Amino acid sequence: MSIHHPSFGKLDDHRVIMFDTTLRDGEQSPGFSMTLEEKLRMADALHELGVDVIEAGFAIASPGDFESVQAISKRFGKDGPVIASLSRAAPADILRSAEALKPAARKRIHIVLATSDLHMRVKLRMSREEVLELTSSSVALARQHAEDVEWSAEDGSRSDPDFLCRCAEAAIRAGATTINIPDTVGYSMPEDMGRIFSDLRARVPGIEGVVLSAHNHNDLGMAVANTIAAIRGGARQVETTINGIGERAGNASLEEVAMAFRTRRDALPYRTNIETRNILRTSRLLATITGFDVQPNKAIVGRNAFAHESGIHQDGVLKDASTYEIMTPESVGWTKSSLVLGKHSGRAAFRDKLRALGYTVGDNQLNDAFRRFKDLADRKKVVYDEDIVALVDDEIVRDHDRIKLAALTVATGMGAKPMASLTLEVDGERHEGMASGDGAVDATFAAIRQAWPHEAALKLYAVQSVTGGTDAQARVTVRLEENGKIVDGQGADTDTIVASARAYVHSLNKLLVKRQRTAPAEFAAPAGTMAS
Amino acid sequence: MSIHHPSFGKLDDHRVIMFDTTLRDGEQSPGFSMTLEEKLRMADALHELGVDVIEAGFAIASPGDFESVQAISKRFGKDGPVIASLSRAAPADILRSAEALKPAARKRIHIVLATSDLHMRVKLRMSREEVLELTSSSVALARQHAEDVEWSAEDGSRSDPDFLCRCAEAAIRAGATTINIPDTVGYSMPEDMGRIFSDLRARVPGIEGVVLSAHNHNDLGMAVANTIAAIRGGARQVETTINGIGERAGNASLEEVAMAFRTRRDALPYRTNIETRNILRTSRLLATITGFDVQPNKAIVGRNAFAHESGIHQDGVLKDASTYEIMTPESVGWTKSSLVLGKHSGRAAFRDKLRALGYTVGDNQLNDAFRRFKDLADRKKVVYDEDIVALVDDEIVRDHDRIKLAALTVATGMGAKPMASLTLEVDGERHEGMASGDGAVDATFAAIRQAWPHEAALKLYAVQSVTGGTDAQARVTVRLEENGKIVDGQGADTDTIVASARAYVHSLNKLLVKRQRTAPAEFAAPAGTMAS
Repeated sequence: MSIHHPSFGKLDDHRVIMFDTTLRDGEQSPGFSMTLEEKLRMADALHELGVDVIEAGFAIASPGDFESVQAISKRFGKDGPVIASLSRAAPADILRSAEALKPAARKRIHIVLATSDLHMRVKLRMSREEVLELTSSSVALARQHAEDVEWSAEDGSRSDPDFLCRCAEAAIRAGATTINIPDTVGYSMPEDMGRIFSDLRARVPGIEGVVLSAHNHNDLGMAVANTIAAIRGGARQVETTINGIGERAGNASLEEVAMAFRTRRDALPYRTNIETRNILRTSRLLATITGFDVQPNKAIVGRNAFAHESGIHQDGVLKDASTYEIMTPESVGWTKSSLVLGKHSGRAAFRDKLRALGYTVGDNQLNDAFRRFKDLADRKKVVYDEDIVALVDDEIVRDHDRIKLAALTVATGMGAKPMASLTLEVDGERHEGMASGDGAVDATFAAIRQAWPHEAALKLYAVQSVTGGTDAQARVTVRLEENGKIVDGQGADTDTIVASARAYVHSLNKLLVKRQRTAPAEFAAPAGTMAS
Repeated sequence: MSIHHPSFGKLDDHRVIMFDTTLRDGEQSPGFSMTLEEKLRMADALHELGVDVIEAGFAIASPGDFESVQAISKRFGKDGPVIASLSRAAPADILRSAEALKPAARKRIHIVLATSDLHMRVKLRMSREEVLELTSSSVALARQHAEDVEWSAEDGSRSDPDFLCRCAEAAIRAGATTINIPDTVGYSMPEDMGRIFSDLRARVPGIEGVVLSAHNHNDLGMAVANTIAAIRGGARQVETTINGIGERAGNASLEEVAMAFRTRRDALPYRTNIETRNILRTSRLLATITGFDVQPNKAIVGRNAFAHESGIHQDGVLKDASTYEIMTPESVGWTKSSLVLGKHSGRAAFRDKLRALGYTVGDNQLNDAFRRFKDLADRKKVVYDEDIVALVDDEIVRDHDRIKLAALTVATGMGAKPMASLTLEVDGERHEGMASGDGAVDATFAAIRQAWPHEAALKLYAVQSVTGGTDAQARVTVRLEENGKIVDGQGADTDTIVASARAYVHSLNKLLVKRQRTAPAEFAAPAGTMAS
């Protein structure tokens, strides 16, 4: 069996298309929003990881989403990934996706329409016939703007099987080249998935000419097993996210699905283009951008996933690693942290190291980063790769900031009221602030509000240490909300309070950018907004 | 079909025994070690959750493990859970488990022995015949000390099926009442699990009289699906942990398995004794004790698991919650954070609130906690349940501390060298320390080391905020290591630096306790130490 696909050409039966929705389903979950620059960095990383399709956003959802889809579309050429934009089955959505995707060398319009009785009745308020009709017309419209069109049956796993088959048939007739059956609410079990896909393959005319796709949520902890079961049932595309982020309990995680293929080749004779050695790096980048680390026991990418890497190992188990290791840590990119640079390292060595870590920075950024590296090397005995990553990430996110932290002094302790005094430079002008607070960080934030008054509310404050040891850098995330707009800022420093101030100021800068891009009323999400 | 089980009496075919190994498999993973007091609190919570069997430890592993198994054995009566202790298939292990379990009203000796060719050759250096013989003799010995004996085939999922059947048969003949087949390395997929259990049921004489059990690891993200598949194949006990903690990528998570049963009753007509409304509380307690929060997208218990609870919801999706919700947040214990107490609340109200949160505290602890609550209420506008929990937890863990933080002053900022000056009281005697450092926290820790010199190395420093808002309490975890002994300390305060100092001092106190309990050489783990 083989399929001729408009984007991928001849596809044999062993090839699985990896469709990544980190930037759409992942990004729309609370706390995981990203700026345009961050999305571009993630898109580059996904490309290097070997992802086949990047779902770059939901173009009509907001001007920010439109801009992201457009910018990512411009990013890659004919050798790059296919760029997808989500659309509901409405002309405005489809045309907006087509517009955003115009610069793409390879593009896909992705249409989603609910097919379960519950969703049709409660959310769409449409009959089955209306949904069938809309399936045909929306796919046909999309095909006028893209050869590669994916049609998704929202809540497909809870849909009536007969009706689902009729919808899939209508979508194929109208020109869809991928048919995706999301388990939108994470309700399915592997047996269900296997049945759904075998059913479609057995009953839908024309199904042999399109790619079947699975999109599984993890509400009952079965997203990965469901994805594998879908493949066994006949799916040849899987929709996943890095670290399994996404709506509610998230999506099937790319790293777990990819490593299941690799580790269980005996039972799963399928081929992806994933370069597994880039998995850990991509996972870490996402964690840095969003400020959320995976938990220590996260499969593949958690700190404890390869227990012997953690420095604590059980006696006697390491006579042969394969007794407790079904894959090597190196196969997904784990390496020992190495002492990389010291205080005597020069600019060339520093630039080489950045290149090895996957950064290409301009001269100004290099100068700033190098200055901060020298400063760090003075204070920190051992400078690890992770330290460099934190420092450069911190520098990159701060590149175009209008508000800068110029000076900060803090005093605190037990029985003493914490106090902070600081100077901000806003568009080059100095603003002073001094305040007390419930803690040193609280006082610092109060001083920032005094120096530069604003209404935004603090929604999240999180601290992570970049490496172990007393001289570890702290990486702080601050989330602010203003009129429904949410931004996350980051800061890194060996002093937690300085890192906190940097993160707060960073998020203020992001808010400034968002203020300039307020969504016009026409983009307020209409009834029937979806989440597949 | 029904089984007569020594601990549970008549078991019909729909009853699933929930065996929790949070305190054994979970506790032995890096960063998740607990003190005796913490284990007792978890055991109480597991009992309230409705767990049938609590694996309390691996009695021979260390005097600390022995003591935990013994103390948890004393904790419950005939209405309480069965207490299990792990043992390798060696007389010394089994006798040590029997000794630790002596006070238990209901007890189980759990024997683990590897049955895969790889483990037998590399780790055990035994032939198949030797393993068969040892299976029989070890189970027979255990039966002299307990009616309820579980036998586990370590690396069972990678074992030769014929040999696995022979081993299970030998274990049953010798008196085992539960046969557990661990997927020790997390290699299996649901189809494999189904086959393994159907196979055993079809081929092993006497299998109809014992309980089959599944123990799945999550290395490929399929632990929960594998557990469900095992049940469908005939298993009637599942081994899980809270939050899915455990070796490497952890175990199947109790909350996901329990909610799969509840949500998919249509396909899974099984009954457990789990009180699902206690799930979230138990998950949070474990996070507090270990210092590791679950990630936001963790199924069931993550902050985003019920997206509309997060304050951000998609437009139009809430016309009917069931469109995107397969279980209610309330069914697993989510409630809205409520304003619970203010600065005018009295001691009685405070005690009532503690009781509602599940705490029974002595008068001294109540007094100390109430004093700190009043102090907090002065500083914090809104006092949430989570704040009370953090405060009381902090008070409880500090109850018998020999080293106390008496005073602390810190100054820091940009361009200034951070400085800390503090006073510790050690057994009532005052020790002063003053130091500078790379950050305020680093300076504080250096001052502690100056005031009370010690060799322990800082291995982890983590900060979480207890609730949102600028006046949130910070909860800090500090991990210290000294001569291979690892301790985690916690501290909570609205000031991150004060919380950090408290956490460091707390971990020093734990080290003092550990120093008094050094393991004698005879307990050094021999070859063949296991991890099922």
